[in-house]
Amino acid sequence: MHKLIHFRLCPLSRSIRLALAELDIDVELTEERPWEWREEFLAMNPAGELPVLQLGDGQTLCGVYAISEYLGDGIEGDAEEAPIFSLFPGDRAARAEVRRLVDWFNGKMQREATHELLLEKVYARLLPGADPSPAADVLRAIRTNLRYHLAYVNHLAHQRRWLAGEELSFADLAAAAHLSTVDYLGEVPWEEFPVAKVWYQRVKSRRAFRSLLADRMPGAAPSAHYADLDF
Amino acid sequence: MHKLIHFRLCPLSRSIRLALAELDIDVELTEERPWEWREEFLAMNPAGELPVLQLGDGQTLCGVYAISEYLGDGIEGDAEEAPIFSLFPGDRAARAEVRRLVDWFNGKMQREATHELLLEKVYARLLPGADPSPAADVLRAIRTNLRYHLAYVNHLAHQRRWLAGEELSFADLAAAAHLSTVDYLGEVPWEEFPVAKVWYQRVKSRRAFRSLLADRMPGAAPSAHYADLDF
Repeated sequence: MHKLIHFRLCPLSRSIRLALAELDIDVELTEERPWEWREEFLAMNPAGELPVLQLGDGQTLCGVYAISEYLGDGIEGDAEEAPIFSLFPGDRAARAEVRRLVDWFNGKMQREATHELLLEKVYARLLPGADPSPAADVLRAIRTNLRYHLAYVNHLAHQRRWLAGEELSFADLAAAAHLSTVDYLGEVPWEEFPVAKVWYQRVKSRRAFRSLLADRMPGAAPSAHYADLDF
Repeated sequence: MHKLIHFRLCPLSRSIRLALAELDIDVELTEERPWEWREEFLAMNPAGELPVLQLGDGQTLCGVYAISEYLGDGIEGDAEEAPIFSLFPGDRAARAEVRRLVDWFNGKMQREATHELLLEKVYARLLPGADPSPAADVLRAIRTNLRYHLAYVNHLAHQRRWLAGEELSFADLAAAAHLSTVDYLGEVPWEEFPVAKVWYQRVKSRRAFRSLLADRMPGAAPSAHYADLDF
């Protein structure tokens, strides 16, 4: 059995959980708190970052980039039939568009909003010695950035069936992973971005999304509508 | 003719310049200062990030991830013969290792060292209204991070012929691109990392590196040994 080392609310881990579920690949989940810098974890991934996928054959894949591209080629031996779903569908131009958007969410949005929000609202409570109360000015800046990213999702969802084009791709999964984390923390002003909301409802209703919606952080309940498919 | 929109000392742009030169693909270079948020540039890449590659057929590729993966498949029509060089050589496991390291340099090292160093030493001088003198405590933190990344390059170069394995790959080009920027700014303590230095000398001596070594920033001369192959 493959094993995914992840953290519940880590959006990069969530994007890979969604990808694995869409590809119908079963994995065992093991939670890691990367900020604890455990030696055993660093021995697996010296970068100290999530997610890490340990394949059944003993191979270790580190980081969302290496894992998603590996999965994009399909896990050998797993699929008897043609894969149901491709993370990077279409021709070369279409795949470049998927990757541009994956980079947008897992790179830019992660730096500008999701990671910062997690630092303020989740990690600070779990780090020994850190100030657990979020800083008002930092939160204000994060909320401004979030609106910019939501506006971009809204714009894309208005123009296309899925974010990168006519087909569901890893770009949708990455974007939805980030929004699911932000939504858990009650920080998505959905009413301001109605087209993004309709797109998110479609992704959220997929079977692959169920395990994310069942996640709970001890001591931090999700927003009231977090698991609601009809929010 | 293809056109690469770049900034001289941007390590992500430099990694693509190296990749294009290794693949023997001619491009015209156009410099952009992304922090000026020019509308024409944002219309090309709404993320406002470098590099951007405009292909001869009119297609636009945004960001180092989409460009490098596109180039990994070879630019159609350009190569009559088999490509001389593959950015992601080897089997699936080998390619995952290349991507893990590309992410290390273009992701982790960029966030923890190169981008911060550029902010302090280069961009601050070019931004209107910013304080142009580097902050001593910030520089100290960046130098600590740099040593950590150099130690990792040293470790990899000690174990392998090239950073990701037996073959030159995009991981070497990404690492060398970052180090070339840091070296321009005189911030690489080479004497402390002798194995990394030997590896860098090998990459630096390649024909593909020449255009980087000819770069000069007005008002900021490179370190004395920057273009010296035998430093």
